[in-house]
Amino acid sequence: MRYVIGVDLGGTNIVAGAVAEDGSDVVGLASEPTRVEEGADAVIGRILSLAGAAIKELALQAAPGRPEVVGVGVGAPGPLNRATGVVRVAPNLGWREVPLRDRISEALGIPASIDNDANCAVLGEWWRGAGHGVTHLIGLTVGTGIGGGIVINGELYHGASDVAAEFGHMTIDPTGRRCACGNYGCLEAYASGSAIAGRAAEGISAGYETRLVEIVRGDLKLITAQTVYDAARAGDGYAQEIVRETAGFLGAGIANLVNIFNPSRVLVMGGVTGGGEDFFKPLRAEVNRRAFRPAVEVCQILPGELPGTAGVFGAACAFLQQHG
Amino acid sequence: MRYVIGVDLGGTNIVAGAVAEDGSDVVGLASEPTRVEEGADAVIGRILSLAGAAIKELALQAAPGRPEVVGVGVGAPGPLNRATGVVRVAPNLGWREVPLRDRISEALGIPASIDNDANCAVLGEWWRGAGHGVTHLIGLTVGTGIGGGIVINGELYHGASDVAAEFGHMTIDPTGRRCACGNYGCLEAYASGSAIAGRAAEGISAGYETRLVEIVRGDLKLITAQTVYDAARAGDGYAQEIVRETAGFLGAGIANLVNIFNPSRVLVMGGVTGGGEDFFKPLRAEVNRRAFRPAVEVCQILPGELPGTAGVFGAACAFLQQHG
Repeated sequence: MRYVIGVDLGGTNIVAGAVAEDGSDVVGLASEPTRVEEGADAVIGRILSLAGAAIKELALQAAPGRPEVVGVGVGAPGPLNRATGVVRVAPNLGWREVPLRDRISEALGIPASIDNDANCAVLGEWWRGAGHGVTHLIGLTVGTGIGGGIVINGELYHGASDVAAEFGHMTIDPTGRRCACGNYGCLEAYASGSAIAGRAAEGISAGYETRLVEIVRGDLKLITAQTVYDAARAGDGYAQEIVRETAGFLGAGIANLVNIFNPSRVLVMGGVTGGGEDFFKPLRAEVNRRAFRPAVEVCQILPGELPGTAGVFGAACAFLQQHG
Repeated sequence: MRYVIGVDLGGTNIVAGAVAEDGSDVVGLASEPTRVEEGADAVIGRILSLAGAAIKELALQAAPGRPEVVGVGVGAPGPLNRATGVVRVAPNLGWREVPLRDRISEALGIPASIDNDANCAVLGEWWRGAGHGVTHLIGLTVGTGIGGGIVINGELYHGASDVAAEFGHMTIDPTGRRCACGNYGCLEAYASGSAIAGRAAEGISAGYETRLVEIVRGDLKLITAQTVYDAARAGDGYAQEIVRETAGFLGAGIANLVNIFNPSRVLVMGGVTGGGEDFFKPLRAEVNRRAFRPAVEVCQILPGELPGTAGVFGAACAFLQQHG
C-alpha cells in the first residue's frame, strides 16, 4: 500500500500522520504545539520530525508488503501559491514568502504539496467524513478565524490565485463590526471563536448576568469560545443566547453560500458544533428563512465528522490530486 | 456550417437568432414583446415563430454549403430543471411547471435545451464577449431583478439543482430592505432596476430636489432606473448620488463574490453599466475596500460587451455544451 504524509499546520498545533492512498487508514497520527514564536525554521523542523516519526511508525507496523511513502501534503494557513509551493502571507504564523513545499520536499527527499488548511479540512471530510461522495460540497471551519472550502465533483475549487472560499470575509452587515482584515461586518467578526468570546465579554460589560463571570473569576479577558460553549451546555442562559446568536450570524452567511453555490451539503466544522442541536436548530432556521427555497430543499447542513483529523486526511488527498 | 437557434426569453422581450457553431456569426436576429399576459401557449408560439424566421433567414443567406440547424437553446427565467427541460417557477412569466424544452423540440423537430437566462448571458460573454477565454468568470445581470452566472474553465456551474448563482439574493444587510423573495437586505432590494427607481422616489418624497420630478411631471411612479441614469448623465446631482450609491451596494455584493470565488474577471451587465466610469469607479473602490487583497489583485471588473445579444449567444452555447 502507498501512503502520503498528511500535515495540518495550524497557528496553535501541528498534526500529522501517514494516510493510506485509499484513505482507509492513518498511521502514526501525532500532534505538537506549533510555537510560532520560535520562527519558521523551528516550525518546519517540527513538521519534519512529525513526518519522520510517522514514516518510522509505518515501517514498524507494516506486516506483509512494504509500505511506500510517496509524498507529503501540507495544509497551511494564509494565501499561498500552490504552483510555486510558497506561503505568501500567514499572519497566524508570522510568515511571509516561505517556500514551505520545497523546504519539506528537499529535507525528506520525496515530493510535497501545499494547499490552504481550510480547503484541506473540507476535502478531508469529502474523502473520509461527513461529505463523503457529495458532488456539491461547501464547508466552513470555525476557529480563531473562519475559513472555508469548496469541493465540486470531488475536486477542490481554488479560484484564479488560490484564495477562493474566504467565507469568513463575507460581509454580512456593511456597517457592522470591524474585522481584523480591515473591512466592516465580516462573518468572521461575528462568528469566529474570538468574536464569540469578544461578544460575550461585551455583553457582560454592558450588565448581563452570567456564570461566565465566576468561571473566569471576573477576568473577562479569559473568556474564550470554549468557556462560552461549556457554560451554555451547563445551562447558562446568557451563554446559550450567545450560541444562538452565533448560529444566526453563521446562518445568514450560509444562506448566502446556499444561494450562490446551490450545494447539496454544507459542513460546519470546529468547536461551535459542540453546541449540537442547540446550535444547528437556529442555524438551519436562519438559512431556511433567508435562502432561496429550491436551493434550501436540496441542501443538508451538518457538522464535520473528523474533528482533529480532517485536515490531515485532506492534505494527503490534496497531494494525491496534485500528483494525479 | 452548423447553426444553433439561441433564444433569450425575458419577461418583457424575446430575442432569437441563428448562431454559428463557432460563435462567429448570428443570422436573423430579431425580437418580439413577450406579452406574458397572453399565457404560455402564446409565448411559446412566439418563440417558435422567431426560431422559424431565423431558420428561414439562414436558408436565404446561405451561399455555398447548406447550413444545418442542429438545435435550439433557450435561456429562461426562474428555477428550472435542465434534465427534464421544465421551467419550474417563473414569477416574471406567471409560469409553473412548463415543459418548455419538449414543447419547442417537438414543434420544430430538432433537439432543444433550456438553461437559466442569467447563466446564458454570462456564458455568452465568455464565448464571444467581455469574458472571452477567462478561466474564472463571474457575471451579474442587473435588470428588473439581479441574476448571475458562474463560468469555470468554460463551463457553467449549475449547482446541485440548477439554481446556483442567485447573486441577487445575497444578503448585504441582514436587517435591511425587504426583498420580493421574502428575505431582508438582499442585494436585489438595493441595486436592481426596480430598487434603483424605488430608492430614487423615496428620496424625493423625503424632500430631495432633483430634475427627476420634472421629467416624470410629478408622478413619481413613472420613475424608472432608465430615467435615473438619464438624469445622472444630464448632470442631476441627486440622480448621480443614486448611481453612486447603487455602485456601492453592488460593490459590497461583488466583494463577497471576489472573496468566495477568487475570479479573474467579474462582468456587470445591464442598464446600470450605462453610467460608465461614474458607475464603475465607486464600484471598484468599494470592492477594493472590502475584499481580500490577494483576490482583488487578480480580478478585473468590467461591463459586458454584448448588451441585447449575450443571452442569445449563451443559450446557443449552452445547447452545444449540453449536446457536446
